[in-house]
Amino acid sequence: MSIGLSLPRADGAEKLSGRATYTADIARPGMLHAKLLRSSHAHAKLLRVDASRARTAPGVHAVLTREDVPSGLMPIYGYFIKDQPIVATDRVRYIGDIIAAVAAETEAQAVAALALIEVEYEALPVVASIEAALAEGAPELFPTAPMGIVPAYGEGARGALRPAANICFEFGYRMGEPSVFDTCDHVFEDEFRFSRMWHYHLEPFVSVADVRDGRIEVWSSNQNPFPLRKELSRIFRMPENAITVRVPYVGGGFGAKNNCKTEPAAVLLSMLAQRPVRLALTLEEGFLTNTQHAAILRLRTGVMSDGRLVARQSHIELDSGAYSDASPLVAEKAGYRIPGPYQWEHVDSLCRCVMTNTAPAGPFRGFGGTQAAWASESQIDMIARRLGLSPLAMRQKNLLKLHQAFMPGESGVDSDLEDGLQTVLAALHHTPAPDRGLGFAVGFKDGGGVNKPAQARVKVSTNGDVFLGCGTVEIGQGARTAMPQIVAEILGTSAARVRVAPIDTDHTPFDQGTNASSGVAVMGQAVARAATAVRDQVLAFAAARMGAPPDTLRLEDWHIIRGNERLPLGPMIMRHYGGTGFEFTADGFFKSEADHHAPLEARCVYWEIGWAAAEVEVDRGTGQFTVTQLVVAGDAGRAINPMLCRGQDEGSAIMGYAQAMFETMRYDAAGELLNGDALHYRVPLADDLPARFTALTLEQGHGPGPFGSKGLGEGAMLPVTAAIANALHDAVGIRITELPLTPERVLHALDQLSTAKALP
Amino acid sequence: MSIGLSLPRADGAEKLSGRATYTADIARPGMLHAKLLRSSHAHAKLLRVDASRARTAPGVHAVLTREDVPSGLMPIYGYFIKDQPIVATDRVRYIGDIIAAVAAETEAQAVAALALIEVEYEALPVVASIEAALAEGAPELFPTAPMGIVPAYGEGARGALRPAANICFEFGYRMGEPSVFDTCDHVFEDEFRFSRMWHYHLEPFVSVADVRDGRIEVWSSNQNPFPLRKELSRIFRMPENAITVRVPYVGGGFGAKNNCKTEPAAVLLSMLAQRPVRLALTLEEGFLTNTQHAAILRLRTGVMSDGRLVARQSHIELDSGAYSDASPLVAEKAGYRIPGPYQWEHVDSLCRCVMTNTAPAGPFRGFGGTQAAWASESQIDMIARRLGLSPLAMRQKNLLKLHQAFMPGESGVDSDLEDGLQTVLAALHHTPAPDRGLGFAVGFKDGGGVNKPAQARVKVSTNGDVFLGCGTVEIGQGARTAMPQIVAEILGTSAARVRVAPIDTDHTPFDQGTNASSGVAVMGQAVARAATAVRDQVLAFAAARMGAPPDTLRLEDWHIIRGNERLPLGPMIMRHYGGTGFEFTADGFFKSEADHHAPLEARCVYWEIGWAAAEVEVDRGTGQFTVTQLVVAGDAGRAINPMLCRGQDEGSAIMGYAQAMFETMRYDAAGELLNGDALHYRVPLADDLPARFTALTLEQGHGPGPFGSKGLGEGAMLPVTAAIANALHDAVGIRITELPLTPERVLHALDQLSTAKALP
Repeated sequence: MSIGLSLPRADGAEKLSGRATYTADIARPGMLHAKLLRSSHAHAKLLRVDASRARTAPGVHAVLTREDVPSGLMPIYGYFIKDQPIVATDRVRYIGDIIAAVAAETEAQAVAALALIEVEYEALPVVASIEAALAEGAPELFPTAPMGIVPAYGEGARGALRPAANICFEFGYRMGEPSVFDTCDHVFEDEFRFSRMWHYHLEPFVSVADVRDGRIEVWSSNQNPFPLRKELSRIFRMPENAITVRVPYVGGGFGAKNNCKTEPAAVLLSMLAQRPVRLALTLEEGFLTNTQHAAILRLRTGVMSDGRLVARQSHIELDSGAYSDASPLVAEKAGYRIPGPYQWEHVDSLCRCVMTNTAPAGPFRGFGGTQAAWASESQIDMIARRLGLSPLAMRQKNLLKLHQAFMPGESGVDSDLEDGLQTVLAALHHTPAPDRGLGFAVGFKDGGGVNKPAQARVKVSTNGDVFLGCGTVEIGQGARTAMPQIVAEILGTSAARVRVAPIDTDHTPFDQGTNASSGVAVMGQAVARAATAVRDQVLAFAAARMGAPPDTLRLEDWHIIRGNERLPLGPMIMRHYGGTGFEFTADGFFKSEADHHAPLEARCVYWEIGWAAAEVEVDRGTGQFTVTQLVVAGDAGRAINPMLCRGQDEGSAIMGYAQAMFETMRYDAAGELLNGDALHYRVPLADDLPARFTALTLEQGHGPGPFGSKGLGEGAMLPVTAAIANALHDAVGIRITELPLTPERVLHALDQLSTAKALP
Repeated sequence: MSIGLSLPRADGAEKLSGRATYTADIARPGMLHAKLLRSSHAHAKLLRVDASRARTAPGVHAVLTREDVPSGLMPIYGYFIKDQPIVATDRVRYIGDIIAAVAAETEAQAVAALALIEVEYEALPVVASIEAALAEGAPELFPTAPMGIVPAYGEGARGALRPAANICFEFGYRMGEPSVFDTCDHVFEDEFRFSRMWHYHLEPFVSVADVRDGRIEVWSSNQNPFPLRKELSRIFRMPENAITVRVPYVGGGFGAKNNCKTEPAAVLLSMLAQRPVRLALTLEEGFLTNTQHAAILRLRTGVMSDGRLVARQSHIELDSGAYSDASPLVAEKAGYRIPGPYQWEHVDSLCRCVMTNTAPAGPFRGFGGTQAAWASESQIDMIARRLGLSPLAMRQKNLLKLHQAFMPGESGVDSDLEDGLQTVLAALHHTPAPDRGLGFAVGFKDGGGVNKPAQARVKVSTNGDVFLGCGTVEIGQGARTAMPQIVAEILGTSAARVRVAPIDTDHTPFDQGTNASSGVAVMGQAVARAATAVRDQVLAFAAARMGAPPDTLRLEDWHIIRGNERLPLGPMIMRHYGGTGFEFTADGFFKSEADHHAPLEARCVYWEIGWAAAEVEVDRGTGQFTVTQLVVAGDAGRAINPMLCRGQDEGSAIMGYAQAMFETMRYDAAGELLNGDALHYRVPLADDLPARFTALTLEQGHGPGPFGSKGLGEGAMLPVTAAIANALHDAVGIRITELPLTPERVLHALDQLSTAKALP
């Protein structure tokens, strides 16, 4: 029995000892090292890029500027909208935009050569914020619209490319009649601001490319090997079977390592140099590569006096930075999730992606759900207090019930939302005291990725050694530990006998990517089906050999059990298949159920839920406050490996806590990032954690994944910011609507509160 | 349409330009280079192996002697009998036996360090030939029997381990009643000798091993990646999923590159050095590693005066050399095939593997069938002449008919044997002249490997790029060209869109090996089934999308054809599976039909047939003779790629011709190989070929493989030696029963003939 055991990580020993292979550890014979030249201007025309001195610098084998891109390629990439050049062509759009690259024998030589490249800019006006980008007469980042596609949507939902200047995409969703607003006792309008955050994946962006004989081999720290292959195929106009993507261990991604990042430049340099090329960014360059969307969220919510929620209109502006990346998909999710897990008569949601002269924003743990939960769970609390209701009672009245559909055509909620809320509240030992407050919130997102197919393969050698082929990247979440537990449980063997084969797109079964907490809930279903199919094959084989009905046999430790008999399979296989044995093999497939009435075209695979309760104590004199207790919970449905689940819940809660308390990328009006390095970008240290911090993994048992499991990599992050803001309100009566919740903002709010009270 | 096209080799450009990757081209960071210390004695006790000076020699990272093998391993290997040590322990058994190995930073340093290893021998008596080994009181190579297993056999067949001193295995087969000998008009007894030959694969034995973190990675020039993995698993007591075997292009094998050769030593050195290790042998070391079995074949054949063959008793001794390698399997095949393709009432066959103090013998193109055909086709000819019958008429009377079973329970012959014989005779433009003669013969073997299962996988990307996963090693036979043709034909695409994924045992579907001409006839069936399954999946998918019955749709160039409509599949897939696409995937499986009445437990997959006709002209003064014409034919059933088939027929015919005319490994009585290098081992040059040399590929259409195909990598080799010997008999009345057919032997035979005639 493997399910429910907190087995140690399969990759633990390797990683702790430093022997584990990450992309940065890949070395190829004759490999060169590449570095990038980045724009020092936030917005400028590129008048001249002269790399002639760099080309003859010591050790240099290839220089890549806009002049070096071979004709016939399509050197522009992007998730939905193809707007990001491998190297800048006519203009640069943010400080850090890539202008040139050099591959040399050493990194130092590459860096030295970059300094020899002369760039002449013609500065353009800069828009470094959502407001600036949307201001009347603001300069446009893309005067002509780049090529893009609109995802397909179902009933009530729509998408549009470039609906206005500096907006690359907007998502809209409407359900029910807007006229119900007129029937509401109260309509509240509030605005919230969500800060820009960096993923802070400890392993920087890195890839190794080896191009030869009309083939591309890429090793990359990337969450999505198959989509990467597809994008490279499109850029380089090569068939997908001429491109091999391999992904070793990934040292964290949190969404950042999607689609293309360093890969196209590495490939182009390898083409030019005819040598393998390694392109490893520094940690600081990560800040310039991908970020979480800052946002302005305006909510207009209609309620009855008894607290019943009726209607919500929302307008979200996401700061997408200079290139679209996954912004359209993040907009869709933020816009879809903004109503929160409540029963509404009417929803009218609009979410727009605003282009600014800052680093591109893309997928980030929570994926729009974080922004949505911050605003929605803050406003629910505010409304309860305005109506004189308890925030708990108000939620109890409105929360979706177990199995109730979120929106028409959508799948039912597969967690008991109130039960989870009661659980975290019970676990928080709150006793009221002056300047001490209690807050809580529910985080909620459609999990697993819409429409996503997954394939997996299980094969077992003559001796019962199991191989699992599965495209889920081991990115720290424990896939290489949990997936084998699923397989082992079904095959009646131990997880230690199951090895996950390295990811290689030539061989690994297709998968759309490691994201949306889809490992166990989506890929896990494909894995379980593959394992079940192999088990059935083996039992049928044994049944035929033994002349017994398959349903009288059972598989255990690679033996066939029939009553009291225990027959080893190895010799049975050798007898039938000859001296060198055999491998039983089967594939498993999973795809979320299609529903043409669902707004996002297919029903959500499962619902990812997190609950948080926080207690704060505020120093009214300084604005300093302490989160004295933080209790979070995620619902694993069924925990395949409880320790790994707890790791996910703790990690995501801390990421939410970090955003609540510290983390924010600060840009000035000229588009300069003021704290884009490890020293100035404040992340929580162990010391900064709440004195009492508890992450609970619930097993409510309603997940669609193997054994009732579901995903939980993001849930516990979602409610933390609002829970702490709500606790501040409870403690000292202030409402902060902008992240992070700094002492300065608390002090300012306290000042405003006393000023307001002091007024006649 | 791809089948039947002589498409150029998919690997041609890479190989001709020198860019193709062979194992010798694999470089790993920090890789060391290894060399081997070999015994200078043919048979000796090893009193002392002192490597202490080598261990501190410059650049040396690891030394492997019998003292360095970690305890707990099973450092002895062998196909069926585990008798060959990785490094010698108590004794050495042939000149070239491995005593020690060194891994150093350079090959030169490794060679230098080997010279510092001191070895003290106590010489033992040597048996360097079959006769010496079987002589009364001969010293035994293995005074105690090594561990071994006996393959399973069906009716009439049996195997036995070590039935007598210096015999490691014997195979026996009996069909019908021996008493029919008494009813025969004549019983003829003849003895034939078959020479030892070297495979002469141009790429030497080479492997690279990288052992770390409890895992073994091996790149090897090996025909059988999965059996190699299995043997390494046994030796190193590691699970099969902790071992990855990768096989790049192989530069020829002809059977030699089976099971373990350089791999275990490379792995052990990598374990000891904790660095990757490359062990590349020289061409000359190949002579010391694996060879073709020399043989003594005694035939006792009962016939009627009208030429009807009735009964054959045979006794074959194979010279297995010092270690058993694949000898038991070769013995089985030689013993099973010795009756030839004729209708018998009684067969009684015994084949024994004799251990001698010479290089080990193993699989070789023809695999026992070559020895059998040499003796059998010579004797049929001799008997015809003794009875005053034409050799053609005699064969016509006795040849198995199309679909007639070779032995009880066995599958029917799937070639028209007489038709092929008439075809080669018609193509040979023989006009009688003094000292000119015509000979011919039929080669015959059960093809495809007994009992062998094969798996393959086909997957197709969103855009219709096809991946083929298939364990057949590209060893020069053209598998990477022919297999894609099969897939392309079934998927309605071009072969250029099908890429064979590199072989990697973690991922590649299981296969027992690239041998027995099984590529098209065995693996090809699995490949065709996988392609068919994918095609059916795609048509079912399109049918569901289009609301049309699948049988109204057709697949062509990744478009769905319905009547005059031609719908591209890519967009249809993207709509259904979302933005990053999908891969359709299916596996195919093939296994030969089991039959418990068949002597070898499963029926033969197909029959590999070759026909040869030769014309010779003899110079009676010198014994020099010329093969003025050689016509061979193989039956491809249906030629997937006619040019590749012709390459196989030409190549195997030349290998037979080479053995007939030149090639032989010569040992002296002390076990020293006298011609084990490229200068002294005589292979045919282009100049040496017959003035008229024609290789015909027949397409008789009865193969069980895709589109009626069958294997043909070995057939045309089998009959060549007997055809030439028969032509010599026809030309000048001599009968040579020992290979090669040197001028000395011809002259000697002519002398004996004239002496005999001169006798009163």
